[in-house]
Amino acid sequence: MSETLADEVVRAIVSRALAEDLGSGDVTTEATVASGVQCRAEIVAREGGIIAGLAVARATFVALDAKIAFESVVAEGAQVEAGAAVARLSGLARAVLAGERTALNFLQRMSGIATLTRRYVEAVQGTKARICDTRKTAPGLRPLDKYAVRAGGGHNHRFGLFDGMLIKDNHIRAAGGIAQAVRRARDSAHHLLRVEVEAQTHSQVEEALSAGVEVIMLDNMSPEEVARAVEFIAGRCEVEVSGGVTLETVRALAECGVEYISVGALTHSAPALDVGLEFEDG
Amino acid sequence: MSETLADEVVRAIVSRALAEDLGSGDVTTEATVASGVQCRAEIVAREGGIIAGLAVARATFVALDAKIAFESVVAEGAQVEAGAAVARLSGLARAVLAGERTALNFLQRMSGIATLTRRYVEAVQGTKARICDTRKTAPGLRPLDKYAVRAGGGHNHRFGLFDGMLIKDNHIRAAGGIAQAVRRARDSAHHLLRVEVEAQTHSQVEEALSAGVEVIMLDNMSPEEVARAVEFIAGRCEVEVSGGVTLETVRALAECGVEYISVGALTHSAPALDVGLEFEDG
Amino acid sequence: MSETLADEVVRAIVSRALAEDLGSGDVTTEATVASGVQCRAEIVAREGGIIAGLAVARATFVALDAKIAFESVVAEGAQVEAGAAVARLSGLARAVLAGERTALNFLQRMSGIATLTRRYVEAVQGTKARICDTRKTAPGLRPLDKYAVRAGGGHNHRFGLFDGMLIKDNHIRAAGGIAQAVRRARDSAHHLLRVEVEAQTHSQVEEALSAGVEVIMLDNMSPEEVARAVEFIAGRCEVEVSGGVTLETVRALAECGVEYISVGALTHSAPALDVGLEFEDG
Amino acid sequence: MSETLADEVVRAIVSRALAEDLGSGDVTTEATVASGVQCRAEIVAREGGIIAGLAVARATFVALDAKIAFESVVAEGAQVEAGAAVARLSGLARAVLAGERTALNFLQRMSGIATLTRRYVEAVQGTKARICDTRKTAPGLRPLDKYAVRAGGGHNHRFGLFDGMLIKDNHIRAAGGIAQAVRRARDSAHHLLRVEVEAQTHSQVEEALSAGVEVIMLDNMSPEEVARAVEFIAGRCEVEVSGGVTLETVRALAECGVEYISVGALTHSAPALDVGLEFEDG
Amino acid sequence: MSETLADEVVRAIVSRALAEDLGSGDVTTEATVASGVQCRAEIVAREGGIIAGLAVARATFVALDAKIAFESVVAEGAQVEAGAAVARLSGLARAVLAGERTALNFLQRMSGIATLTRRYVEAVQGTKARICDTRKTAPGLRPLDKYAVRAGGGHNHRFGLFDGMLIKDNHIRAAGGIAQAVRRARDSAHHLLRVEVEAQTHSQVEEALSAGVEVIMLDNMSPEEVARAVEFIAGRCEVEVSGGVTLETVRALAECGVEYISVGALTHSAPALDVGLEFEDG
Amino acid sequence: MSETLADEVVRAIVSRALAEDLGSGDVTTEATVASGVQCRAEIVAREGGIIAGLAVARATFVALDAKIAFESVVAEGAQVEAGAAVARLSGLARAVLAGERTALNFLQRMSGIATLTRRYVEAVQGTKARICDTRKTAPGLRPLDKYAVRAGGGHNHRFGLFDGMLIKDNHIRAAGGIAQAVRRARDSAHHLLRVEVEAQTHSQVEEALSAGVEVIMLDNMSPEEVARAVEFIAGRCEVEVSGGVTLETVRALAECGVEYISVGALTHSAPALDVGLEFEDG
Repeated sequence: MSETLADEVVRAIVSRALAEDLGSGDVTTEATVASGVQCRAEIVAREGGIIAGLAVARATFVALDAKIAFESVVAEGAQVEAGAAVARLSGLARAVLAGERTALNFLQRMSGIATLTRRYVEAVQGTKARICDTRKTAPGLRPLDKYAVRAGGGHNHRFGLFDGMLIKDNHIRAAGGIAQAVRRARDSAHHLLRVEVEAQTHSQVEEALSAGVEVIMLDNMSPEEVARAVEFIAGRCEVEVSGGVTLETVRALAECGVEYISVGALTHSAPALDVGLEFEDG
Repeated sequence: MSETLADEVVRAIVSRALAEDLGSGDVTTEATVASGVQCRAEIVAREGGIIAGLAVARATFVALDAKIAFESVVAEGAQVEAGAAVARLSGLARAVLAGERTALNFLQRMSGIATLTRRYVEAVQGTKARICDTRKTAPGLRPLDKYAVRAGGGHNHRFGLFDGMLIKDNHIRAAGGIAQAVRRARDSAHHLLRVEVEAQTHSQVEEALSAGVEVIMLDNMSPEEVARAVEFIAGRCEVEVSGGVTLETVRALAECGVEYISVGALTHSAPALDVGLEFEDG
Repeated sequence: MSETLADEVVRAIVSRALAEDLGSGDVTTEATVASGVQCRAEIVAREGGIIAGLAVARATFVALDAKIAFESVVAEGAQVEAGAAVARLSGLARAVLAGERTALNFLQRMSGIATLTRRYVEAVQGTKARICDTRKTAPGLRPLDKYAVRAGGGHNHRFGLFDGMLIKDNHIRAAGGIAQAVRRARDSAHHLLRVEVEAQTHSQVEEALSAGVEVIMLDNMSPEEVARAVEFIAGRCEVEVSGGVTLETVRALAECGVEYISVGALTHSAPALDVGLEFEDG
Repeated sequence: MSETLADEVVRAIVSRALAEDLGSGDVTTEATVASGVQCRAEIVAREGGIIAGLAVARATFVALDAKIAFESVVAEGAQVEAGAAVARLSGLARAVLAGERTALNFLQRMSGIATLTRRYVEAVQGTKARICDTRKTAPGLRPLDKYAVRAGGGHNHRFGLFDGMLIKDNHIRAAGGIAQAVRRARDSAHHLLRVEVEAQTHSQVEEALSAGVEVIMLDNMSPEEVARAVEFIAGRCEVEVSGGVTLETVRALAECGVEYISVGALTHSAPALDVGLEFEDG
Repeated sequence: MSETLADEVVRAIVSRALAEDLGSGDVTTEATVASGVQCRAEIVAREGGIIAGLAVARATFVALDAKIAFESVVAEGAQVEAGAAVARLSGLARAVLAGERTALNFLQRMSGIATLTRRYVEAVQGTKARICDTRKTAPGLRPLDKYAVRAGGGHNHRFGLFDGMLIKDNHIRAAGGIAQAVRRARDSAHHLLRVEVEAQTHSQVEEALSAGVEVIMLDNMSPEEVARAVEFIAGRCEVEVSGGVTLETVRALAECGVEYISVGALTHSAPALDVGLEFEDG
Repeated sequence: MSETLADEVVRAIVSRALAEDLGSGDVTTEATVASGVQCRAEIVAREGGIIAGLAVARATFVALDAKIAFESVVAEGAQVEAGAAVARLSGLARAVLAGERTALNFLQRMSGIATLTRRYVEAVQGTKARICDTRKTAPGLRPLDKYAVRAGGGHNHRFGLFDGMLIKDNHIRAAGGIAQAVRRARDSAHHLLRVEVEAQTHSQVEEALSAGVEVIMLDNMSPEEVARAVEFIAGRCEVEVSGGVTLETVRALAECGVEYISVGALTHSAPALDVGLEFEDG
């Protein structure tokens, strides 16, 4: 599983976030803290969960003070208890104070996503189903959201509209049927892209299978419907389940023998993990 | 209450979000939908809540097809039931399909924030307390997050580090005490900025009051502590409550007579409101 | 075959190109041509070939004079004879003169690529082989280069490093063998990406086939070697030929029964098609 | 002769090129190559020619791994034989693999231009004619294209529309004649710009000379016409030849005694020089 | 008093300024100065005044040669005599020559502003009035202009339209009166912003006071009118004087007992301080 | 004389200026002025002078409200008396109020430059000397500063370091003498750039003349020295005077018969022209 996050991408997102928060300057800190003062601080998890985003927090402080020392105490994807230190840093007090909120905003969001993902992953343990994210991410933060899903043990779905052919209901209607849509997709796509079709009924599953797709997405089906579809497909293509999946239903769906279960809530409704920054004396 | 959102800001955020999702192109739609085909669609709330972000959804589609017709069915901040249409649009099918996910990502997030905000606002109804947001927003989306809070009936706190003096624990330590921190802040800040001090103990409240601040933020205090502080302050400055406020505790805090209650969860932990886009025949 | 080119992408490339040429201003035109003067002009092919890039030429002039009238005389991908008019335009003389070189630079490059592509496509006519481009494009112009290949009747390969898994020699060495590289790729890639492996020897073809890849790229093999590999593979996966393909060898390679032939020269060595802009009286 | 290329310019072009190729990430390399692995590689010329662009190739790798070691084996503008190593590099394998294609795209294009330029320069050796480029460059890559011309021994013409007054046919028509166009140019241009006029007939040469221009460009004339014009001008201004110049005609034109011969093909039709990157064991 | 200037802001402004001056390159320096040559130089004040902007000058040279050594001889805000050295630098001669004009353009403007500010500050010495700047700055250079005012001993007013509520005549008319405008402002503004109202007549002063504003701006009033207003206000809010303030009138205005005097000329009409760069032998 | 100003350039500068002033929003206007309210206003010169920058003021308002009606009352470069209306506008009150300061900042600066330029131009009337600007402009605003000089009747010098060869003392030292510096310049520069040399002594004038330069800049010479140099040069090249030129000395210098007099003060020390925006009833 890849857990990398390109430096360039992180830098651009961090720089935008800092500009948003700092605007014409951190008036409070500039007034009350002298410019050369150094400080030491700790980032602490105030509730238990999975930590993700330390590299982004680090990049936030580094953007403000290139000489800051930032040391992760736990690894990305680590499970921590409430009260655990997750990173230690030292450097210019002005930079630490100016970057604090932005760094924590990244960390609390990413750790929240990782924590929720881990719960889904654990819920399907022992089955062959992979928990996948969707494109339902915070606009502008998709690389971080998807990284956090990986940190939580989940898998990514396609990144965007450009790196995967997923034919949905409206594409089918516009093309005049599944067979025709798949044919057009094969004709147009380059040869390293697979074709997946969304099916809402059994007859759509049959059509998609005949059209020779590589993956069928069963949309908003009950575990029973899913089980029946999987049985019918019988390994002739891969199967993804999507739509309204919850922690309550995910296990039953996984046990139907599907390859992928995609869950929008991982990135659009994960509550933030409570993390704080505490200054140390001296 | 201002509910505006600058066009320029929206355009920049939308453009970034579309670039993220579209990358080198929407391969599925380009393959399956012919370039001149028109379509009509409806945006529908799949659960009840407060709608916010229609202007951003509109800007998303307009960025892809300048001639798209997008008509809001409900006003920003309106309460809707599950199943309600919130907007109708018609235009190039390719543009609608390419913009669908991005537009919904904005709408589901902003409506989620507005919906949660409304619940807090209703919880304190009849008191003088204003529900305020914090700087705990999704990095890069702060203007939208804060707009959604207003749409939900909440008030904004300062936008960033640049438009308000909020002296926290670490500023106090760096300055050598509340009195000195406030004096420095007054000296440095321009004369249209107020000074607020965060107080964690009663003696800090006393010090801040002596220093002549305009607002005291009571951090993580129980309703009892808050009530005592408000009584002590007795109108000599305004009072804000912050830290760990929940729907369970917010009413009791409001009834202490504070002016402002700031709630990080409004923007960092609001679950998305389920909204979808449905194509219409013809 | 998709022939679209996203407006936003074109605008960004055009804007950069104009900035490069105009810098602090078109000193000659500003001096010699009065600001309101209108003109009419024709874009003419000075040698026969395939035309591509008219939409980009149009966007160039529009960026300088939003009211310019630009009418294509031939369709994208059309074959023209020397002397044929390919577009007519009218508008501010200053804008036409300032944009002339930049517009023609796009058109001559893109038409050159389309023209060369067409020759390869015609050379393999009747076989099942698709002529594909590579990532050997002019840096910053890949969307245009790849569009021109499509306009010439060719197919695109993956756009970049992000939308296809192509495992080459060095990936294999780093992973410790083809089997392991393919396994890692399957584990890491999202489920809409296929896996292709580059093979330089017959035993690599065997290994790749065992690893279950979807496409094998035969690198720099003679038609005889290709024929033998295709026979061995026997439809168990798709086959791409790459490396040193020329107009002399392409037919023989295609007749081996491969699915894809990728040709770097299409985009890195196509001579420009000679096109000019001629002003008309009046 | 200046051979510099501003770092800032290179960085911007390289960064755009990498973004284009990498998009949301190099999926193959991230899957198959572990993150800390180091490698050593050599850039090799696969055919003989003039090398240009090593600094750009270097900047490409450095942008991905600041600690990469990149050592040029030959100087910019050096002539190499097929098989010659032109640079050696070592660093993170992921960075080398991710940057490989982009770096080579720069190098193969720039070396192709330098190689073709050198052939023109050698063709006119012993005459006083300078081989010059034109503005017929790949949009967005002009600084690199023009640098490559210098590396090949050629001279640059003006960089863009802003740093030279070149009055062409259409300017003349708009201004109402050569005399008037030149007068307006003198009046408007700052005093460090020369004025050149394009002449297509002998009478235009006479007019331009009377108007007191510093350079006359003889457009698309035969060697005989050029010889006659040069004789007539007799050193009263400089002479440039342009339009349809080939390796077959360039010597005859140079021997007419002109100062400058500008050749569009140098930058719009130079075939790429074949260069590759080979990994070394260990 | 804060005298900081965010690195990021400076870098962006410097980078734009250098791009503007350098365009496609410093043709003179590249022609006449070899690429590795080192030099030493001194920045000298050619007339007496207050120095501001050394950090910006430094950043200019550093942007061109990261290894340049730049040592300030005097502190920001220092008063110097004609002929005084203010900084010494050494590094690549090409970088020093290319950056010279841009660095001096910053320094001469900022020192000019600081010098004029100091004269106003000295003119009001002994009174409680603070000399403040306005938003009448050079577009794009506001952070530098406002920094220079601080370096000269002045205070900043709000930075822009976003960090202070200043209700002017037209806001009052649009809102339907001072009382209503102030009420709307209080309702809309977050609670860390004060409200200031511009008053042109005595009755407006009365109204503003009744509305409970924190600051009243007396616009274009004579010292007598100001004195009367201050007496009437009697400390119930702060008072700012603005409009047509000159070095001749500023003392009389200050002696009225106002808190703030804002002076547009500080940033829109300060003559540049003459500074030069002199190369040293060896 | 060219008086154009590229739309694209203006848009970029205006957009930056508005972002600087508006930041996260115009809090006062959004609070006090309802969103649909229309207004009418007049821009008035509060002192006599030359008007320049109306197109930039217009672009500022248009950027905020595309439907704004902005009508210039006087032409660019017109002389107006105190109290004269220079433009009328009508549109959204919020846009007019938000853009007011930025638009006036452009107009007051540009008109100030045009006004001072006109005084220099009038001072040399009847001589052949052209009043020229320098590169001593406000960083980031050079296109506007130079346009304002033209509007005032002056001429531009080179725009930047890229469009003219001006060999100064330090170039001469680095090259090892005037002859060698000029030779290198000729060798390196493209053939549409002239070469100018700065001379501080009579012997440098002689050397420059021998080297065959096109322009000699007499630096910081008295009228007597200038007269002697002009007599010596006797038309063999053009002459520019520069350095410490004032309204007192400019006439005497012009009468020496020089072609160009460049004056830094035009752009670095011109006081702003007082212009205001007045709302009209209705």
